[in-house]
Amino acid sequence: MIVVLKNGTTKEQRESLCEWFQNMGLSTHVSEGMYHTIIGLIGDTSKVDISLLESLSIIESVKRITEPFKKANRKFHEESAIIDISGRKIGAGHFQIIAGPCSVESREQLTTIAKSVKEAGAGLLRGGAFKPRTSPYDFQGLHAEGIKLLLEAKKQTGLPIVSEIMNINDLDLFDEVDVVQVGARNMQNFDLLKALGRTQKPVLLKRGLANTLKELLMSAEYIMAGGNENVILCERGIRTFETYTRNTLDLSAVVALHELSHLPVIVDPSHATGLSRFVEPLAVAAAAAGADGLMIEVHNDPQRALCDGPQSVTPEQFSRIAERVRRVREALAE
Amino acid sequence: MIVVLKNGTTKEQRESLCEWFQNMGLSTHVSEGMYHTIIGLIGDTSKVDISLLESLSIIESVKRITEPFKKANRKFHEESAIIDISGRKIGAGHFQIIAGPCSVESREQLTTIAKSVKEAGAGLLRGGAFKPRTSPYDFQGLHAEGIKLLLEAKKQTGLPIVSEIMNINDLDLFDEVDVVQVGARNMQNFDLLKALGRTQKPVLLKRGLANTLKELLMSAEYIMAGGNENVILCERGIRTFETYTRNTLDLSAVVALHELSHLPVIVDPSHATGLSRFVEPLAVAAAAAGADGLMIEVHNDPQRALCDGPQSVTPEQFSRIAERVRRVREALAE
Amino acid sequence: MIVVLKNGTTKEQRESLCEWFQNMGLSTHVSEGMYHTIIGLIGDTSKVDISLLESLSIIESVKRITEPFKKANRKFHEESAIIDISGRKIGAGHFQIIAGPCSVESREQLTTIAKSVKEAGAGLLRGGAFKPRTSPYDFQGLHAEGIKLLLEAKKQTGLPIVSEIMNINDLDLFDEVDVVQVGARNMQNFDLLKALGRTQKPVLLKRGLANTLKELLMSAEYIMAGGNENVILCERGIRTFETYTRNTLDLSAVVALHELSHLPVIVDPSHATGLSRFVEPLAVAAAAAGADGLMIEVHNDPQRALCDGPQSVTPEQFSRIAERVRRVREALAE
Amino acid sequence: MIVVLKNGTTKEQRESLCEWFQNMGLSTHVSEGMYHTIIGLIGDTSKVDISLLESLSIIESVKRITEPFKKANRKFHEESAIIDISGRKIGAGHFQIIAGPCSVESREQLTTIAKSVKEAGAGLLRGGAFKPRTSPYDFQGLHAEGIKLLLEAKKQTGLPIVSEIMNINDLDLFDEVDVVQVGARNMQNFDLLKALGRTQKPVLLKRGLANTLKELLMSAEYIMAGGNENVILCERGIRTFETYTRNTLDLSAVVALHELSHLPVIVDPSHATGLSRFVEPLAVAAAAAGADGLMIEVHNDPQRALCDGPQSVTPEQFSRIAERVRRVREALAE
Repeated sequence: MIVVLKNGTTKEQRESLCEWFQNMGLSTHVSEGMYHTIIGLIGDTSKVDISLLESLSIIESVKRITEPFKKANRKFHEESAIIDISGRKIGAGHFQIIAGPCSVESREQLTTIAKSVKEAGAGLLRGGAFKPRTSPYDFQGLHAEGIKLLLEAKKQTGLPIVSEIMNINDLDLFDEVDVVQVGARNMQNFDLLKALGRTQKPVLLKRGLANTLKELLMSAEYIMAGGNENVILCERGIRTFETYTRNTLDLSAVVALHELSHLPVIVDPSHATGLSRFVEPLAVAAAAAGADGLMIEVHNDPQRALCDGPQSVTPEQFSRIAERVRRVREALAE
Repeated sequence: MIVVLKNGTTKEQRESLCEWFQNMGLSTHVSEGMYHTIIGLIGDTSKVDISLLESLSIIESVKRITEPFKKANRKFHEESAIIDISGRKIGAGHFQIIAGPCSVESREQLTTIAKSVKEAGAGLLRGGAFKPRTSPYDFQGLHAEGIKLLLEAKKQTGLPIVSEIMNINDLDLFDEVDVVQVGARNMQNFDLLKALGRTQKPVLLKRGLANTLKELLMSAEYIMAGGNENVILCERGIRTFETYTRNTLDLSAVVALHELSHLPVIVDPSHATGLSRFVEPLAVAAAAAGADGLMIEVHNDPQRALCDGPQSVTPEQFSRIAERVRRVREALAE
Repeated sequence: MIVVLKNGTTKEQRESLCEWFQNMGLSTHVSEGMYHTIIGLIGDTSKVDISLLESLSIIESVKRITEPFKKANRKFHEESAIIDISGRKIGAGHFQIIAGPCSVESREQLTTIAKSVKEAGAGLLRGGAFKPRTSPYDFQGLHAEGIKLLLEAKKQTGLPIVSEIMNINDLDLFDEVDVVQVGARNMQNFDLLKALGRTQKPVLLKRGLANTLKELLMSAEYIMAGGNENVILCERGIRTFETYTRNTLDLSAVVALHELSHLPVIVDPSHATGLSRFVEPLAVAAAAAGADGLMIEVHNDPQRALCDGPQSVTPEQFSRIAERVRRVREALAE
Repeated sequence: MIVVLKNGTTKEQRESLCEWFQNMGLSTHVSEGMYHTIIGLIGDTSKVDISLLESLSIIESVKRITEPFKKANRKFHEESAIIDISGRKIGAGHFQIIAGPCSVESREQLTTIAKSVKEAGAGLLRGGAFKPRTSPYDFQGLHAEGIKLLLEAKKQTGLPIVSEIMNINDLDLFDEVDVVQVGARNMQNFDLLKALGRTQKPVLLKRGLANTLKELLMSAEYIMAGGNENVILCERGIRTFETYTRNTLDLSAVVALHELSHLPVIVDPSHATGLSRFVEPLAVAAAAAGADGLMIEVHNDPQRALCDGPQSVTPEQFSRIAERVRRVREALAE
């Protein structure tokens, strides 16, 4: 950590500051520049509260050299993590496709989709029981009933299930859910993260719409600091000025997260773009960029013939996507 | 609401779609263009699920003409709302400054600051007991003890208090808190919003870092739909590519929110910029732009002489800010 | 085009407005809603000045249904364009890799790189003679001498060359350059675009850092409206709040631009991320997403052993990238 | 400047690097940390090419402590600059309002507006003769004829004039124009900046839609490095995810630019929001935030009674704005 002092700081102030750092177990190296004096802090700075430092009136700025996340940091965990989800592995070369409907709507809908995505090669089944909706007047999910239907589909197909939690008080309902998803809007719901850190449940943590990769890793750190290291990171598009797609999928995030962290990284092309016709090319691109998995919305509703879901693909389209993803991964295997 | 049909939609499909809209209580006007056919929907479209509409395979796009928020919409509430906070009014010409420390640290700290901001003209006292921190290793607040200290300060000074809630399960602790604040990271924590909607407590709702004004109003709508219309909106800076200030304060939001909604709008220049020396000019500018109030962090710590808080002003600076805000408001009074 | 009238517009005003539209060759359809009256405009609206329309005091908003670009619009050119660059084709299944150094530095540097990228499969040679630099104190390129060296390298290797123009007055120097590149910072230098529209030279038009896809297509339209339809679009990263990579590569842009336009779309992963170790995964991902080509910076400097260029790959790395791109494209060929 | 070395850098590599810096006239301070070794560079680093440095394979990152702009830097010019525009002063307490139509349309239009804004207190007249338009089919300005009309209006009213240049070849036409404006889209048209640097003409430099404040100052540096120190900076809104206003006005920029530079800073609320009803509150707010001037679009067209310009105010509205700005400035004068 580099601390830049303001012009006019006295020698006494500087020495008292250095002493303070030394009391925190850090050693200090002072360099005097033409316009600024700089103190280099050496030691474990991950627990230094940077806002507190910046609050000292003699300090112009503070620059971190080492990242403030530790348990999620590849520097301290060189080998890529493998998360075991009821027998299915993800990370370090193990690749999984998570597929299913945006919302669980009925037993029939879920069973039909679950069977078809399993056949096409999906390794996990997703389905929303609690739905975060911008408008209070939109459908909010089947709640407990939705979880029950997911568990039935799991029994029928053998696919482990993934579902989103929105409220810390619903945690009991997720007892048999294999992966608990934290949605983009809750990425910094710190109390929820802490609660999940006290379980050993695999957590699929989605990047917030306007959160940096380092913030995503700090949120993973919240879960891991509690003792639960089973975290899967998920890039799902960020908010930018471009409005043609709902969000902007940031595939560089896959490469960057693999560099910064040993945790597995998956990509959700369905939410990123909000357009079903974008799912295939971006799913294939994500696999090519090195993602450890994909999360894809699949919908099938024979009763409403008009309906194809703005961001959901049909089972037939999903099957083609899974096949093309497989081919790309094969072509790139060393 | 305008629905644009895809090329190649048959007359039968269009007619069955129109019938469906009519069953929802909407009337339809069809115009055939050279390249597109357009259906205009007339009636109360605020409860139409736009994603569902877009999911119909014959629809190219849907454009809202009327906003999907209703209780928060000035179109249906021409007069500006006045929120009564234990006797202090805000909105429709009533202006309030909310001041106090970022975190409640000790009885002495809080009392000293509370007295000095009251004297300088603050109408409400703020103080954080639960602190959302990016890092799990940073100070997270005094929790219940912090609330207790706030209530003591309230008793001593008579200032109503404002404090942030992060967890739905802490609601009981806020029984005597006058205004419950929902922070930027929780703006779309819908379960928390719903819980607050079931109270009659004034809610200070902060705009999320990457949320549009319409999303802010949809979150207000969540609270209001539950029956609690005591919502105060707060602009506190948005995330942009500029990194000189922590966030970019969007003062146009004050004008825009007053246009879209009848709810009071306040501005938090402390969090927006993260720099105490920016607080005065931006507080004054916010008042000039027509804000109904300000939220300002004030810190005072005689024991740590070095410390001035990166985004907090001293009681002396606060006093000057309050005076200059008063002068600007007087100059602009018709 | 949909025109939404303000509440309170009189019948006379509306009729006089409709008459005005009819004089512009457009027909009008009026629908009266509960809160708004809407006029649908039918006919060729691409030449309607939308700002002028919005300037009418009785109009609340204007929404385009058809895009304002015409020559660059796939709606009017269903077949994908093929641009012929001195015999090399790009577009509609023809794929090209453009490779070479960021700046032309010397004859030896350029020749060495040109030979090695040709051998590895590059179809065109790039090299900057005029360099847009943020700081006036940074190296600005070899100018005319740089172009001369590029032409020599072209003679030696047979590779057509691509180089960036910054100043309309340098156009003569580009007489024998095969593709003229317009950089991101000049995407809306409209006088430069018009000048290029008066030639028949293939133009590689880079998306601006903060420009939408529709603005990119409007800039292509500037060139095409002048009579030059040889435009290649290039996605090179956009500016967002994320700072880990220099810019955020937007691979959805490849899919979106192919949907909106018939022009070829290439991707520049070197500038998008500014990090050489990101080039391989993102180049492969771009090919998987359906790009018609890639632009990759390659650097080789035996004299400065330390140097690898922050965003440039070595010839060896380039060779591996080209091979992996080839494999992905083969795997995805139907 | 701080240079962070990669893990595994040998002592020889480090020493050879330090020697290289010393040859550039810089002195070096090395601190060895637990995970990184850091070199502090002391001396004038403003001419160090940061990309070149980052290109060294042993370097992990480079962090500037001192900004790379020098002539535009307040550190080296403590006193605020005053720019003299044909007798009108701006900066260091001198405040000017620049007003006039977006485009010069006719002699009558310009004269009417010029007289009315002069009477209301404008100090300079603006008018566009060359208009940067997103679409090639929109009106592009009257060009030389527009400049001629501006010069006539100047003669009639005595107001110095401001007009935008788009093409380096039009510079001769601006001989008698008092302030040459560089628009947001040309902020990094470096050849144009260099050409203006060779004149002594006051330049009004607008911030680009997606440019940081430091990039704006680097563009000012381009002009000043050529010898022309008469630069006025202009904040005119940046591109963000919010779409309610056309751009997001960043008033913190006023405070930040005054901190970083001694150059005058003005604000253009008309372009920032694109909405005439936002001009008054934001003009007043900009004055309160400490701007040295305002640029406001005023339109008046008795022949097209419907027309009020989406971002232009009427002469009557302008007069009210000027009065309210005056009042706020008085209220805030110490």
